[in-house]
Amino acid sequence: MDFEPGELLKNITTPADLKKLKEFDLEQLSKELRQYIVDVVSVYGGHFGASLGVVELTVALHYVLNTPYDQLVWDVGHQAYGHKILTGRRELFYTNRRYNGLSGFPKRSESEYDTFGVGHSSTSISAALGMAVASAYKGETDRQHVAVIGDGAMTAGLAFEALNHAGIANTNLLVILNDNCMSIDPNVGALKEYLTSMSTSKSYNRFRDDIGFVLGKISELGPDALGMVKKIEKSIKGTLLKNSNLFESLKFRYFGPVDGHDVKRLVKTLEDLKDIPGPKLLHCITVKGKGFAMAEKDQTKWHAPGLFDKITGEIKKSVPIKPVPPKYQDVFGHTIVELAEKNDKIMGITPAMPSGSSLNIMMKAMPDRAFDVGIAEQHAVTFSAGLATQGMVPFCNIYSSFMQRAYDQVIHDVALQKLNVVFCLDRAGIAGADGATHHGAYDLAYMRCVPNMTVSAPMNEEELRNLMYTAQLPDMGPFVIRYPRGQGVMVDWRQPMKEIEIGKGRKLCDGEDVAILSIGHIGNEVSKARIALNEEGIYPAHYDMRFAKPLDHSLLDEVFKKYKKIITVEDGVLEGGMGSAILEYMADKSYFAQVVRLGIPDRVVEHGEQSELWNECGYDANSIIKEVKNLAVSRITDTLAG
Amino acid sequence: MDFEPGELLKNITTPADLKKLKEFDLEQLSKELRQYIVDVVSVYGGHFGASLGVVELTVALHYVLNTPYDQLVWDVGHQAYGHKILTGRRELFYTNRRYNGLSGFPKRSESEYDTFGVGHSSTSISAALGMAVASAYKGETDRQHVAVIGDGAMTAGLAFEALNHAGIANTNLLVILNDNCMSIDPNVGALKEYLTSMSTSKSYNRFRDDIGFVLGKISELGPDALGMVKKIEKSIKGTLLKNSNLFESLKFRYFGPVDGHDVKRLVKTLEDLKDIPGPKLLHCITVKGKGFAMAEKDQTKWHAPGLFDKITGEIKKSVPIKPVPPKYQDVFGHTIVELAEKNDKIMGITPAMPSGSSLNIMMKAMPDRAFDVGIAEQHAVTFSAGLATQGMVPFCNIYSSFMQRAYDQVIHDVALQKLNVVFCLDRAGIAGADGATHHGAYDLAYMRCVPNMTVSAPMNEEELRNLMYTAQLPDMGPFVIRYPRGQGVMVDWRQPMKEIEIGKGRKLCDGEDVAILSIGHIGNEVSKARIALNEEGIYPAHYDMRFAKPLDHSLLDEVFKKYKKIITVEDGVLEGGMGSAILEYMADKSYFAQVVRLGIPDRVVEHGEQSELWNECGYDANSIIKEVKNLAVSRITDTLAG
Repeated sequence: MDFEPGELLKNITTPADLKKLKEFDLEQLSKELRQYIVDVVSVYGGHFGASLGVVELTVALHYVLNTPYDQLVWDVGHQAYGHKILTGRRELFYTNRRYNGLSGFPKRSESEYDTFGVGHSSTSISAALGMAVASAYKGETDRQHVAVIGDGAMTAGLAFEALNHAGIANTNLLVILNDNCMSIDPNVGALKEYLTSMSTSKSYNRFRDDIGFVLGKISELGPDALGMVKKIEKSIKGTLLKNSNLFESLKFRYFGPVDGHDVKRLVKTLEDLKDIPGPKLLHCITVKGKGFAMAEKDQTKWHAPGLFDKITGEIKKSVPIKPVPPKYQDVFGHTIVELAEKNDKIMGITPAMPSGSSLNIMMKAMPDRAFDVGIAEQHAVTFSAGLATQGMVPFCNIYSSFMQRAYDQVIHDVALQKLNVVFCLDRAGIAGADGATHHGAYDLAYMRCVPNMTVSAPMNEEELRNLMYTAQLPDMGPFVIRYPRGQGVMVDWRQPMKEIEIGKGRKLCDGEDVAILSIGHIGNEVSKARIALNEEGIYPAHYDMRFAKPLDHSLLDEVFKKYKKIITVEDGVLEGGMGSAILEYMADKSYFAQVVRLGIPDRVVEHGEQSELWNECGYDANSIIKEVKNLAVSRITDTLAG
Repeated sequence: MDFEPGELLKNITTPADLKKLKEFDLEQLSKELRQYIVDVVSVYGGHFGASLGVVELTVALHYVLNTPYDQLVWDVGHQAYGHKILTGRRELFYTNRRYNGLSGFPKRSESEYDTFGVGHSSTSISAALGMAVASAYKGETDRQHVAVIGDGAMTAGLAFEALNHAGIANTNLLVILNDNCMSIDPNVGALKEYLTSMSTSKSYNRFRDDIGFVLGKISELGPDALGMVKKIEKSIKGTLLKNSNLFESLKFRYFGPVDGHDVKRLVKTLEDLKDIPGPKLLHCITVKGKGFAMAEKDQTKWHAPGLFDKITGEIKKSVPIKPVPPKYQDVFGHTIVELAEKNDKIMGITPAMPSGSSLNIMMKAMPDRAFDVGIAEQHAVTFSAGLATQGMVPFCNIYSSFMQRAYDQVIHDVALQKLNVVFCLDRAGIAGADGATHHGAYDLAYMRCVPNMTVSAPMNEEELRNLMYTAQLPDMGPFVIRYPRGQGVMVDWRQPMKEIEIGKGRKLCDGEDVAILSIGHIGNEVSKARIALNEEGIYPAHYDMRFAKPLDHSLLDEVFKKYKKIITVEDGVLEGGMGSAILEYMADKSYFAQVVRLGIPDRVVEHGEQSELWNECGYDANSIIKEVKNLAVSRITDTLAG
């Protein structure tokens, strides 16, 4: 589809073109850039509010900085659509987040303007500091290094660790705090309240001016007064002012707050800051969804609204002809409330994903038992561990790929102490359009090697509910339930719950010659494959393992006694995953069989629809059909006899 | 050995006994407690300086709090020796850190007074907040929750995440900041400088008093002055004071700094704080090693000095009769300097372990190229990634078990972008006396499943040097080199370095019937076993795999063609480790053989000497001998034919 850029925007291919504009054109350009984002995202989808909020900042940064020599790191990166459009990718922008199209995030392999691949939050200060230290070492004293980070991302520990180091590293580093009070959901925590107080009450700079004025007046009262005023000034300067601000405490020079939608003021400020050496922080106030009224009003809904009518703001929803299965996340959200009504020990924890995890249902129903702790996965896990020591049963819901951020807390604080924490890993397996950074590819491997851990994955909604029910029973210890992004398969999902024996799989159907062992939702692709194969007279057996740990030994004994050709299927990495667990059991029991493992291969898988990527990785229904046929005709190799 | 406690200490078994003392006895008790620690640690070893530094705090806390009902969490926990001695473990304290003895850290299974298992830093606030939230939910309003955390541990992101949440959670939480300016090495970073400025300049509270006094004087100047003073007071109160302190910015009430060695003052302060609701922080200034002059003077050396003469302070070193091999860490420390002298792109990074990693050698030799970033593993990795984007080759040295804290940064910031960061994982495998929290057990499994990653382990010093040499060659991408705590095996280790082909193992000797495939230093146990077996006429082959990823396929092809009985040996978890990688290759190539995997079993392994634990886990030389003999007489099971 063709999108018509505005009069100014259409002449801008790279920041060099932007620099030719007069300063007074920048407001118009910002309008055109904003409109272009609205035009494309309304038709093709993607993140929305975040990029609208930084349009002026994006224009000002590329106007003032000498990118890509000057280095600009966008934290998280879903706000970088304007950046992409201004840096050579306007015409490809409509392919954003689609299979083989542009990535939804900055990506080094995509453009030299993308200095650092992002996706997970709070990495920008560390990365930019690394760049700045390298520049200092090389003697590139003129080079600028800028990290743009949201107030939500600032709550993550990594950002604080980076500030702590940057404050004492004498490099050319500017941190722009993009303060919009939002992550996907509204931000929480003490830092957010602090920033709000800074931007709503008198600013720090104005306070300095005011108090200076009053002190001046006092000193006019006479020589005695003058002495005392000097004393006060000294005290204020010596003790208070230099630490009077969180960021100045950490040895950053603080500037702001400034209006992040005043592009001229931003240009002026950024020009000034270029000449100030050392670590600096510019506090910018912006509005997420700026310029699109409905997005400004309901920022969570418009974080990534899907397709919409750009005039009326109506979000386009395909109206299903018949009832459709729910999203797994909603099954989680409703089920935890149902369980918590009966078990008063259950609590819910999310690191800044109330709507993404559907824990918001519990937060609304039981506000004293469900917690959004901010973008703080490490804390979410150790906080859960603390709750568990008191007999609580915390359900800590973290996207699989974000759980990587709390791996040590899982091992050190939960697993070694065998505490009853239930880890609900949403977006496990291939995550889809968010791409490489967001695939929950590794969890089966990195959780399975941890002692005391139960690792499970439901094949459908009923199984998810039963696993959740089971996990909250007494003395279950650390318990992982991983499930994918998107819909399940059961319309009639709200069935009574029952306990599942730990480590017990299910035989879904007997077969001949070949047995397929799957775990989790991807088992539905196996079912599809099996039905198609049956029509061709091929009858593979199908087992749903349910647990990657502990494995169902009696099920496997049955399988290995009956079948010599095995296919394992998992929506996770092949290295160390469930298939490997089965190989380990085979080795330990000296079973021999031909085993084909299907799963995510050992390379970076990019973005696209889940089904496209399952196909690319070779474990959608069609791929499974092919593998079964291959295996059915194969012979166990000569090596066996050798 | 019998240790004689002092007159007061000998009557104290639990805190209930302590509470019977008069306040004026507490100084004497502190002396006795300190002496007892000196007596035992000088003879049996262990951490030293940290516990001496908190003797008074320990006494005061158990005197004032109603432990274990009130909940006390010691961050890191190597300072909790006094706590252990006062809570029922005095007579067992001499077994500290030894096999089957007390743990060197608080541990829930050891005592009800140990509310939370610790070892890695910076978990205490999150855990105590979890406890406090559970208490609030249960209506236990009288219950106190105290986290004692060092200023070093406070720099880790997890602590900041916890403060951000705790600041808005209205619970009974007291954070005691034990400010001694030290981790194992001196602390670094902006926070440290900030705390120093708070404790050395006028205190915040004194400033309030002072400025109040001056303002009072001014107001005496007349009615005009009075109005202006009120204006200033309002301004100061409204804008500055409420945020004038880093912790108050985060909505904590800040108290201090107080002298952490004044036990009476501590008791008084803690009593007062019990009555103040909400989140509070008490800033305590202490001296690491307090009361033992030499330990106060050289705090790094006396962090864990080994055995020493408690009178003269002479540290006992066994003087070797002949030259001994160096520690792996020292080979790293010297080799990185040697490499960096020739390759000006190399940089060194450590998160607060300059002496533990021996990066201090490079920090001294090349201060602009080696960085201690504080206890901040996440930042260490992403900062390294930033350096790598600029063509640098960062060697990021992190203990294996601490690398768990930066797992997402490894995946998201380094591996997905295929950046040239070399991860040197010290203390990999069984770590010894530090125990379960510190074993580097999981790294082969959790690194192997990450795309683009090379995962290697040297069998000796020469191999470590060659791997380091190889890793710094151009375009190597993410590169893990893991090696154990302690000494290598080569006296004459400083050999010229040469490149190792990526993924290439070594055949150490041919054999009959059984082949042993090992990775890393533990291969030396295999060598020992092999020599002993040869004497009995048993000749296993031995291959050093060197790489868990990529595997040496041609080596494995040779092995599987020649041998049907394989033993894999690794100093790491069996689930998903190198042995599993070999099983995966076998399955992919349809090789069949009997494979026995030796490594760390799927349970929590406690503390002890490395050799004791290798034996317990079944992969020291004797265990290997046994396995080879078992396997040599075994037949491949009937299943093969079935």
